[in-house]
Amino acid sequence: MPEVLHQQLRQMIRLSEAEIESFIRLFTIRHLKKGENLLIPGEICRHLFFIRSGCIRYYYTSDNGEEHTGQFFFENGWYTDFESYLTGKPGTQTIEAIEASVIMQLAKTDIDRLYDENPLFERFGRLMIEQGFLAVKRRNASFLNESPEERYLELMRTRPKVVERVALHHIASYLGIKPESLSRIRKRLQMQDSGS
Amino acid sequence: MPEVLHQQLRQMIRLSEAEIESFIRLFTIRHLKKGENLLIPGEICRHLFFIRSGCIRYYYTSDNGEEHTGQFFFENGWYTDFESYLTGKPGTQTIEAIEASVIMQLAKTDIDRLYDENPLFERFGRLMIEQGFLAVKRRNASFLNESPEERYLELMRTRPKVVERVALHHIASYLGIKPESLSRIRKRLQMQDSGS
Repeated sequence: MPEVLHQQLRQMIRLSEAEIESFIRLFTIRHLKKGENLLIPGEICRHLFFIRSGCIRYYYTSDNGEEHTGQFFFENGWYTDFESYLTGKPGTQTIEAIEASVIMQLAKTDIDRLYDENPLFERFGRLMIEQGFLAVKRRNASFLNESPEERYLELMRTRPKVVERVALHHIASYLGIKPESLSRIRKRLQMQDSGS
Repeated sequence: MPEVLHQQLRQMIRLSEAEIESFIRLFTIRHLKKGENLLIPGEICRHLFFIRSGCIRYYYTSDNGEEHTGQFFFENGWYTDFESYLTGKPGTQTIEAIEASVIMQLAKTDIDRLYDENPLFERFGRLMIEQGFLAVKRRNASFLNESPEERYLELMRTRPKVVERVALHHIASYLGIKPESLSRIRKRLQMQDSGS
C-alpha cells in the first residue's frame, strides 16, 4: 500500500497494524492506459477508487455528443460515481484515465462489511464523505458565483496540476465553455500579465 | 420531536427509546419570521438545522449585490452551511427563512460527542451526509448538463413545492438567470401547453 494511503488512514482513525493489513488486502489493482475507461454509462459502479498514480476525469455526454467534465482526480485522490455506487443503479457518467494510471479499487460489498464490523471504518467513511461533500459544494458555489474566467483563475491558483497536466479542451469542458472561449480567456490573461 | 424525525432516525439506525429521548433533548427550537436570517456571512455555522415547518433558502451575494440561490429546503429537510460547520471558519452564505419557519437546531459539539459515544450515531451521520452528497452532486450535474429551461422543467417535475411556494425571483436566482428570462421561459412553456 502506498505510504500516502497509510498516512490518510492514520490521520483519520486509529487502526492497529493487523487492521491496516486486512484493509490493504481488500484492494485490487487496475492498470489503465491513457484514454482507457474505468466506467462507462450504463454500468453499475460497485467500487471506490484510489488513484495511486496518473489522472482520471469523469464526464457526462449530452445527446449531441458534447462532453461535460465534472472533475479531475490525480494521484492520491479518491473517486467513485457516488450516485450509482449508493443507489446500485446504472451510472450515466464516463470515468476516463487521461494519463496512464494505476488505480486501487475497493468493492462496496467489502466497505459495507467493514462498516458493520468496525466502527472505526464507519468513522473513516464519514470523514471521507465529508471531504468529498465539501469539494462538491465548492464546485457548486463556483457555478453559482463565478464567471468562466474567474473559475479559470481560481483553477490556476488552487489546482495548478489541472492547468499543467490536462488538455485544454478538457479544461474548457470542465469550465463549461468552448475551447475557443478558453483560448480567448488565456490570451486576455497573458496580455494583462505582459502589460502589468 | 416531530413524528417524521422519529421515522427518519428509525429508518437509518436502531436506537433504544432511551437513546431517542436523549437525542431529542439536544435540539433547541428557533422561530423565524418570513425574511429573517438563520445565518449571515461572517458568522461561523455551529449547528445542524432540521426544518420542522416553513422554508429556508441559502444564497451567496456577489460584490454587485446580486444574490445566487444555492438551494431551498422545506419542512422535514436538513441543512447546514457545511463548509463553515466542518472547518469552523466564518461562512460566506446567508440562510434565510422565506416563509415563517420553525427550526430545530443541533449543536456540532453535541453531534461530535454523540459520534464518540455511540457508533450508531456515527452511522446516522454517515448516512445523512451521503444523502446530502447525492443531492449536491445532482445539482452539480444539472449545472453541467442542462440549460436553464431544462433545469426549470426538471424542477417542476421533481420538486413542485419550489414552483408552488417560492417567489419567482428566488427561483430565477436558483436557476442562474434573470427574472425576465424565467418569465420568458414560463410563457413559452404555457404556449406549448395550450398549443398541444
